[in-house]
Amino acid sequence: MIRFNCDYQEAAHPRILERLARTGMEQMPGYGEDAMCDAARARIRALCEAPDADVQFLVGGTQANFTLLAAALRSYQGALAAETAHIAVHETGAVEATGHKVLTLPQTDGKITAAQVDGYCAAHYADEAHEHMVMPRAVYISQATELGTIYTRAELRALRKVCDKWKLYLYIDGARLGYAMAAEGCDVDLPFLARTADAFYIGGTKQGALFGEAMVLLNDDLKRDFRYVIKQKGGMLAKGWLLGVQFDELLRDELYFSLSAHAVRLAMKLKGALTEMGAAFLVDSPTNQQFPILPDAALAELGRNFSYSYQCRVDESRSAVRLCTSWATREADLDALIAELRRLLRK
Amino acid sequence: MIRFNCDYQEAAHPRILERLARTGMEQMPGYGEDAMCDAARARIRALCEAPDADVQFLVGGTQANFTLLAAALRSYQGALAAETAHIAVHETGAVEATGHKVLTLPQTDGKITAAQVDGYCAAHYADEAHEHMVMPRAVYISQATELGTIYTRAELRALRKVCDKWKLYLYIDGARLGYAMAAEGCDVDLPFLARTADAFYIGGTKQGALFGEAMVLLNDDLKRDFRYVIKQKGGMLAKGWLLGVQFDELLRDELYFSLSAHAVRLAMKLKGALTEMGAAFLVDSPTNQQFPILPDAALAELGRNFSYSYQCRVDESRSAVRLCTSWATREADLDALIAELRRLLRK
Amino acid sequence: MIRFNCDYQEAAHPRILERLARTGMEQMPGYGEDAMCDAARARIRALCEAPDADVQFLVGGTQANFTLLAAALRSYQGALAAETAHIAVHETGAVEATGHKVLTLPQTDGKITAAQVDGYCAAHYADEAHEHMVMPRAVYISQATELGTIYTRAELRALRKVCDKWKLYLYIDGARLGYAMAAEGCDVDLPFLARTADAFYIGGTKQGALFGEAMVLLNDDLKRDFRYVIKQKGGMLAKGWLLGVQFDELLRDELYFSLSAHAVRLAMKLKGALTEMGAAFLVDSPTNQQFPILPDAALAELGRNFSYSYQCRVDESRSAVRLCTSWATREADLDALIAELRRLLRK
Amino acid sequence: MIRFNCDYQEAAHPRILERLARTGMEQMPGYGEDAMCDAARARIRALCEAPDADVQFLVGGTQANFTLLAAALRSYQGALAAETAHIAVHETGAVEATGHKVLTLPQTDGKITAAQVDGYCAAHYADEAHEHMVMPRAVYISQATELGTIYTRAELRALRKVCDKWKLYLYIDGARLGYAMAAEGCDVDLPFLARTADAFYIGGTKQGALFGEAMVLLNDDLKRDFRYVIKQKGGMLAKGWLLGVQFDELLRDELYFSLSAHAVRLAMKLKGALTEMGAAFLVDSPTNQQFPILPDAALAELGRNFSYSYQCRVDESRSAVRLCTSWATREADLDALIAELRRLLRK
Repeated sequence: MIRFNCDYQEAAHPRILERLARTGMEQMPGYGEDAMCDAARARIRALCEAPDADVQFLVGGTQANFTLLAAALRSYQGALAAETAHIAVHETGAVEATGHKVLTLPQTDGKITAAQVDGYCAAHYADEAHEHMVMPRAVYISQATELGTIYTRAELRALRKVCDKWKLYLYIDGARLGYAMAAEGCDVDLPFLARTADAFYIGGTKQGALFGEAMVLLNDDLKRDFRYVIKQKGGMLAKGWLLGVQFDELLRDELYFSLSAHAVRLAMKLKGALTEMGAAFLVDSPTNQQFPILPDAALAELGRNFSYSYQCRVDESRSAVRLCTSWATREADLDALIAELRRLLRK
Repeated sequence: MIRFNCDYQEAAHPRILERLARTGMEQMPGYGEDAMCDAARARIRALCEAPDADVQFLVGGTQANFTLLAAALRSYQGALAAETAHIAVHETGAVEATGHKVLTLPQTDGKITAAQVDGYCAAHYADEAHEHMVMPRAVYISQATELGTIYTRAELRALRKVCDKWKLYLYIDGARLGYAMAAEGCDVDLPFLARTADAFYIGGTKQGALFGEAMVLLNDDLKRDFRYVIKQKGGMLAKGWLLGVQFDELLRDELYFSLSAHAVRLAMKLKGALTEMGAAFLVDSPTNQQFPILPDAALAELGRNFSYSYQCRVDESRSAVRLCTSWATREADLDALIAELRRLLRK
Repeated sequence: MIRFNCDYQEAAHPRILERLARTGMEQMPGYGEDAMCDAARARIRALCEAPDADVQFLVGGTQANFTLLAAALRSYQGALAAETAHIAVHETGAVEATGHKVLTLPQTDGKITAAQVDGYCAAHYADEAHEHMVMPRAVYISQATELGTIYTRAELRALRKVCDKWKLYLYIDGARLGYAMAAEGCDVDLPFLARTADAFYIGGTKQGALFGEAMVLLNDDLKRDFRYVIKQKGGMLAKGWLLGVQFDELLRDELYFSLSAHAVRLAMKLKGALTEMGAAFLVDSPTNQQFPILPDAALAELGRNFSYSYQCRVDESRSAVRLCTSWATREADLDALIAELRRLLRK
Repeated sequence: MIRFNCDYQEAAHPRILERLARTGMEQMPGYGEDAMCDAARARIRALCEAPDADVQFLVGGTQANFTLLAAALRSYQGALAAETAHIAVHETGAVEATGHKVLTLPQTDGKITAAQVDGYCAAHYADEAHEHMVMPRAVYISQATELGTIYTRAELRALRKVCDKWKLYLYIDGARLGYAMAAEGCDVDLPFLARTADAFYIGGTKQGALFGEAMVLLNDDLKRDFRYVIKQKGGMLAKGWLLGVQFDELLRDELYFSLSAHAVRLAMKLKGALTEMGAAFLVDSPTNQQFPILPDAALAELGRNFSYSYQCRVDESRSAVRLCTSWATREADLDALIAELRRLLRK
């Protein structure tokens, strides 16, 4: 079985494992208050051109999301998000478990627009009964989105503007941020994000690290006491330096960016091949997640040797599936996948 | 200003106020453990033909809803509800504040169907990632719904069946239960509800009481320790007998039913008159809430002397509004409203 | 059975019931946004000499407490309180249910001191691991306390000072505020409270109203969006004017104060009589709650005709109990109690 | 600086790091549903002689504790624990953040007794107002405790019995379980725990793993849907096999037990040396945490080269501190510590 169902099925890039092994018997202070975390923080601040940013490391994405939102929201406030947002669908109600409603908006290609946010907030405050409804106080988006698409600078600037208008935090889930930045035509880089968002995280788990996400806090209100919230929500790793070591290594010598570029290059190769074969796509994704629409019969056969992730039924005989490349994907495996797809679609 | 915007703008039926005045200086044990509450409980059990039902009194509807759901759900479970459900829209996220997600389904005339619930649950458990999604564990519906419509016996039986299939509690918000039972063609009565639901409440606030809702618990799992939950969620009235007294009086001599019948008769008079005038309706409601679609110009003028509740825009020049009758509506006031509408629509 | 076990066993003072009856069929806007609530608000602001205070009405004390604290605290913050505080003992963990820990301090006569608060906060922030502990952010006290004692101006000023030092809200539960202000030697009045606390409530339920507590918000941070929190936590009464009417009447013509004075006068009569009989007290209370220590045998017999509230065992043969007077206590009933106690203690 | 302040300042035992490195590029299914987790589960079941146990892996201890308690408790229920319990003191109110009160009992040497639990529950249910108080539903203890002490079989059997009597879950925090089992005189082993507790966890973070805790669920009620709770509370590691790999390795060839024995042997060497020097101890600990009482002057000087953890002031000139050995402690470092202590105490 060759796995293309997700982008977190290998442990970590060898450089990460080596660094971890090398620090194995050194003594370190706990909870992220060590020199390695500080080194990684400095690296991130420099890459983001954000000298005042606070950086805190968390173990995983769900944890990062609900921790940030719990820090941002008062009890009666909620976060606006696409109906396909990870926090709306695939976190077992983790945000609700902290008491906050996820306020969903219809999505287009996994994205929401400034106009939608503006409309929602305008309607909220225009309603005489607005005290009877959850107050929107944050916007959650993902870059890349759950459907592999990316926001442009123009779109993010518009979201920032509407967030300022309605006093909303703009928070960006960067589980696949590297893959987004590696996409052709992506004009959003780290300094832009740091200027635009109130908080975002640089994903490690899906991007070459063993585990870990680096939360970048730009807004002072979110920085204050954030570590209390991390601890309370179970996200404060005792051996915090494990996270610092990984991000320090990942962001050294552009490793993070070259791993991302590798994954996206292979994804584009797959996309090109599928297009050539005449396959349609659920969405036009420029990143490492591809959502081809394939005949059910072909999928059944494909599944014998290649794992994919089922997305949704498209019509009576076809379904959309997700195929992911990652930092770890071997080109030979991808070529085998393409060959198999070619064989199956030719039938 | 004559008010038709809601059905809770008068205090209480004179008989309720008299009973309260009469018991003013009697000494009573607190927290609903008194003879008056017991008398009201006995009356409700008899009306429901449910000798084993537990009955607990709460002050208001939002409180009743989140208290019941907090008692019913474990942390990772949620309640299915129409996207127009009161708990989904107008309770400031009270259910989410107790940690539980409201899982919304598209509505038709304010209602959801057994087939929708079945489809949702089937999809949930069929998904390999179902542990990453909130588990459906309850169905919340309202009788009458937020749009004034009512469920039939057949519909409720189908919901009960699908709830049994997927291990869901069926909970019915009866804020306007009397108005539903008074509707022409309503075949759902209290004994049927008691045989069909796991819990429901008999609304008092909108039905002639000063305040108060009577929660009827049929399922033993929900009865257990329910009073702990009431106390924790702030719903245990120190002078609990105030609730017992009111329900005892309201359910004596069919007062509850005759007050409901009065409101529905007047609502039908309004509906008939509007129909005659050629007005369309957002939904065909047989109960005390009517949702006519009216020209914006007429609405602006109407609002000078009659209050209504704005519902939604229908097209460029027309909006749907809510007009409510209640136990307290005077026929002369309704006639004045009809006359004014006639004048405005004739223009 | 003549009841002295608590101070909320009668419904309401006749003037309250009359006012409610009189407004029974008037039409009112809902949710506390009506002229009667505004009138009561104006009255309270005037009595407090606090023209900028926000006043919101809630149905009961537990609700008032957790709603205020939920509005005041971020997720990782807690409230300091005496180990005997109502929120620590008798609210089924309502504060914890909103996610916040009650941080208890040892009490003396039901009270905590500024020095205790100072010590707690100093130790918290001095601890390297303070991020691993709940951050104190509010002080909760009751006036009168759960043991009937009262704070002096000097004590409250000291608490205010230490709250300013450590950035703590000072919140005062005034379920029995009238009885406190009626106590001999009480130098704390409403204007002083309004100058000293961030929020406090004027209790109605135990002080002559049918139900209801008037929350007085002095700190702007607590005023903001407070009504959202009320709604979310189930405390927004649909017919909000019922609360306004009651407080308007209660605070008119000094009714509130004269009812309180009545209760305290009778309590002092009881205290004097018990002292004369040689009884000891658990605590020296100047308010309507008295905690005599009585022989178990006498208590058993007393319980046949007079209800009391069991407090705690004192030694092998004696227990402390609570005897309450209230606005509704008839002097003849109190005299009967004293006579019975005299008979029993003479044995 | 040689660190003795805690037992998690080195990354992981070399065998763990090697295994992780070896599996680095293998493809694995996510979320703990892989062959390596299953192998570790089988190993744990065998060691526990509990073929029906469910085993789930979590990243850290705070997370393990609040996840288990969230799964075990209904909203109005709390967990009994020593006032020194980790959940009561050092988890930033994580349990309260899930809505549950930690009900603290006075401790002796970090432990609570069956008699205390019995007394608490008897008093709870005997109180007429028990619905106004949090219902005890679980007992939380640590083995070894936060003060290094251990429970005996007899003590745990008594706790089990009282838990059965009052319907309480018995949950054991095993962050330092290996160190407890390695203590001289400890008669509690894994099979005994599995027969006695409803759930416990085998700590990895402090016992040689990079990170991770293995939750062993014995009670069927706790097994049900536990993975939903893990996901919701942020504890489901995407690359779950990282945890399986570590526990599989740690529990192979008795590595876990020999690492624990090493730490305890060194701790006893330290204890013996300190006793010889005439030092007193805060508590008589047979495990890897030692709490000597030392002169403040000596501590100040000690701190230049050796880190320790400040515990509490004992008198004007002396404090208790914590000195920890661990699986990673080098005997030469311990000898250096002993030599330095000897030098300082001789002064």
